[in-house]
Amino acid sequence: MTDKDYMQLALNLARQAEGRTSPNPIVGAVIVKDGKIIGEGYHHYAGGAHAEVHALKEAGEDAKGATVYVTLEPCSHYGKTPPCANTLIKAGVKRVVIAMEDPNPKVAGSGIELLNQAGIETELGVLEDEAKKVNEVFLKYINTKKPFVILKNAMTLDGKVATKTGDSKWISGEESRHLVHQLRDKVDGILVGIGTVLADNPRLTTRLPEGGQDPTRIVLDSRLRIPLNADIINQESDAKTIIATLKISDEDKKRKLIAKGIEIIEAGEGNNIDLKLLLDLLAEREITSLLVEGGSQVSSSFLEEGLVDKLYYFIAPKIIGGKEAFSVVGGEGVKKVSDGIKIVDKEVKLVGEDILVVGYPEYNRN
Amino acid sequence: MTDKDYMQLALNLARQAEGRTSPNPIVGAVIVKDGKIIGEGYHHYAGGAHAEVHALKEAGEDAKGATVYVTLEPCSHYGKTPPCANTLIKAGVKRVVIAMEDPNPKVAGSGIELLNQAGIETELGVLEDEAKKVNEVFLKYINTKKPFVILKNAMTLDGKVATKTGDSKWISGEESRHLVHQLRDKVDGILVGIGTVLADNPRLTTRLPEGGQDPTRIVLDSRLRIPLNADIINQESDAKTIIATLKISDEDKKRKLIAKGIEIIEAGEGNNIDLKLLLDLLAEREITSLLVEGGSQVSSSFLEEGLVDKLYYFIAPKIIGGKEAFSVVGGEGVKKVSDGIKIVDKEVKLVGEDILVVGYPEYNRN
Repeated sequence: MTDKDYMQLALNLARQAEGRTSPNPIVGAVIVKDGKIIGEGYHHYAGGAHAEVHALKEAGEDAKGATVYVTLEPCSHYGKTPPCANTLIKAGVKRVVIAMEDPNPKVAGSGIELLNQAGIETELGVLEDEAKKVNEVFLKYINTKKPFVILKNAMTLDGKVATKTGDSKWISGEESRHLVHQLRDKVDGILVGIGTVLADNPRLTTRLPEGGQDPTRIVLDSRLRIPLNADIINQESDAKTIIATLKISDEDKKRKLIAKGIEIIEAGEGNNIDLKLLLDLLAEREITSLLVEGGSQVSSSFLEEGLVDKLYYFIAPKIIGGKEAFSVVGGEGVKKVSDGIKIVDKEVKLVGEDILVVGYPEYNRN
Repeated sequence: MTDKDYMQLALNLARQAEGRTSPNPIVGAVIVKDGKIIGEGYHHYAGGAHAEVHALKEAGEDAKGATVYVTLEPCSHYGKTPPCANTLIKAGVKRVVIAMEDPNPKVAGSGIELLNQAGIETELGVLEDEAKKVNEVFLKYINTKKPFVILKNAMTLDGKVATKTGDSKWISGEESRHLVHQLRDKVDGILVGIGTVLADNPRLTTRLPEGGQDPTRIVLDSRLRIPLNADIINQESDAKTIIATLKISDEDKKRKLIAKGIEIIEAGEGNNIDLKLLLDLLAEREITSLLVEGGSQVSSSFLEEGLVDKLYYFIAPKIIGGKEAFSVVGGEGVKKVSDGIKIVDKEVKLVGEDILVVGYPEYNRN
């Protein structure tokens, strides 16, 4: 096994906690001695022990002289736990292989420095690209103080999210809907427009046979049209519901919603919700990842403002037609094809009968 | 090697003449003796020798006592060539394995009967489903006397064929456009709406580095708006151009077009071209396969009338947005998702940067 192989194992370990460590990164560690894995660990939840600590615990005394593979630079600061760099030094490990530097300004190379000063050999950059992808949510959040925005759409092969009458049940298949619940389970927040609430009365909870956690639910509702009996503000869940609205919207309705335990966020002075401001306000609430389950209007607003970081397009093998049907991306649109948004690093998978395209928008910033 | 393996070879041979044998089927034959392939052949072009004849020629005297694998029942009638059943009997073959019966009423089992009467062992149905797919064009034509209609669309990931201003250059990538020319090379006819002609002034010829044949070009032009200097009616090609229009359209313009060597087909008494009638008229002209390179309107017309047999959707990883942009399928559309057209037997491939979905529409006939 090579360094890369061990690092791959460490990355797989890290992924087990996807969506559970927010606002922290996900991290995995593997300890190897004489060609044998003697310790494995990952960071389970924010505030819990770091990956290195779990792995060292498993390795015990044998860690002395071993090589440690860790997906993110060991920390050098006292947070909720003592710095891992010190713990590794104390354990007497010989070599530490690191996929990527910790972009957190409190670390940013100082963990590696500590190790080197203690005479421990370090190597940085093994499977770095993959490690960055694994922590794409954390990297966006730590670097920009904004949530990583995932746009999810379920459309027909002819690019529609609803027929001309607004019917959308069911565009995607059961397997796709299951996968959407797995996405919900891994994000801090989920957002829809009031149109979706009025049309479908969704709960937006995570419903998986294996359990799962509910994300904070956010509804864009500039005029506070949400009915007080909507499921989304009456359901039982550990996660809260936020209504994003305007300063100018009805004070009485705001009070009634607050009385029901809903948080009201005023995002914008004018007539439209300021999505950029809203994202800042959500990030302040430690929402590091946001799943936008957009209808035609919400999807285009996020895309036109260049706010989407990643997209999941579920394409069902159906054609519903209609000039007046709802396009997956409405709004203004561009004038020339060459001014469109390019989707890069795309992956295409079959999910049941549907086709799933996952990719990253590359905005034309001119 | 099993019967299926040899039949697969015969099917591969048949495919070499795809688009070259119209209105005949494509057929391949393999002759095997003592586990060795001693003859191979396929039907190259309508009027040319049949597959069995090519293969027997290669096998020579050795054909005596051999097994023949043929993708379609050997013919039993005198057409442009003598019946293959007789030729096989004369050659003294022992066994004939056949993928499918010839649906041509002039054959339809009588070829097999002839062989059996001569004491030749026959086996029918080996790789029958694949053989039917290989000859899907011929089967549609012989069974319904209508062309097999292939709808091709190039769309963005958000389901659009042009921006709100009508710009469509270039939605799909170079590899996809190459594949479209390969499709053109294999069909008898290609059809576009006058909108496409006015917007893009296309030639609709087959342009492949390796050569290829031009399909007959058909333009739907109910009001004869086509300019006399359009490329499509002035280009050099062995194939002709047909303008499908209405009885009521301008007689003088019709005469001018005819003078330029264009055929005028009047398809419909009223104000709209009758597509079903047009397909019948094209079939009369031995157009057995028709590639519809539809814009939004033409695509939806063909789909809404249930006239599309197969579709090729090229999806480019781009988003152009726009409520007013042109959807890949416009028209009326259905009211409920469950009333849509299901795409079955779909294949998903990557073609350069694009995603290609090939499938068969299953119409909701209620």
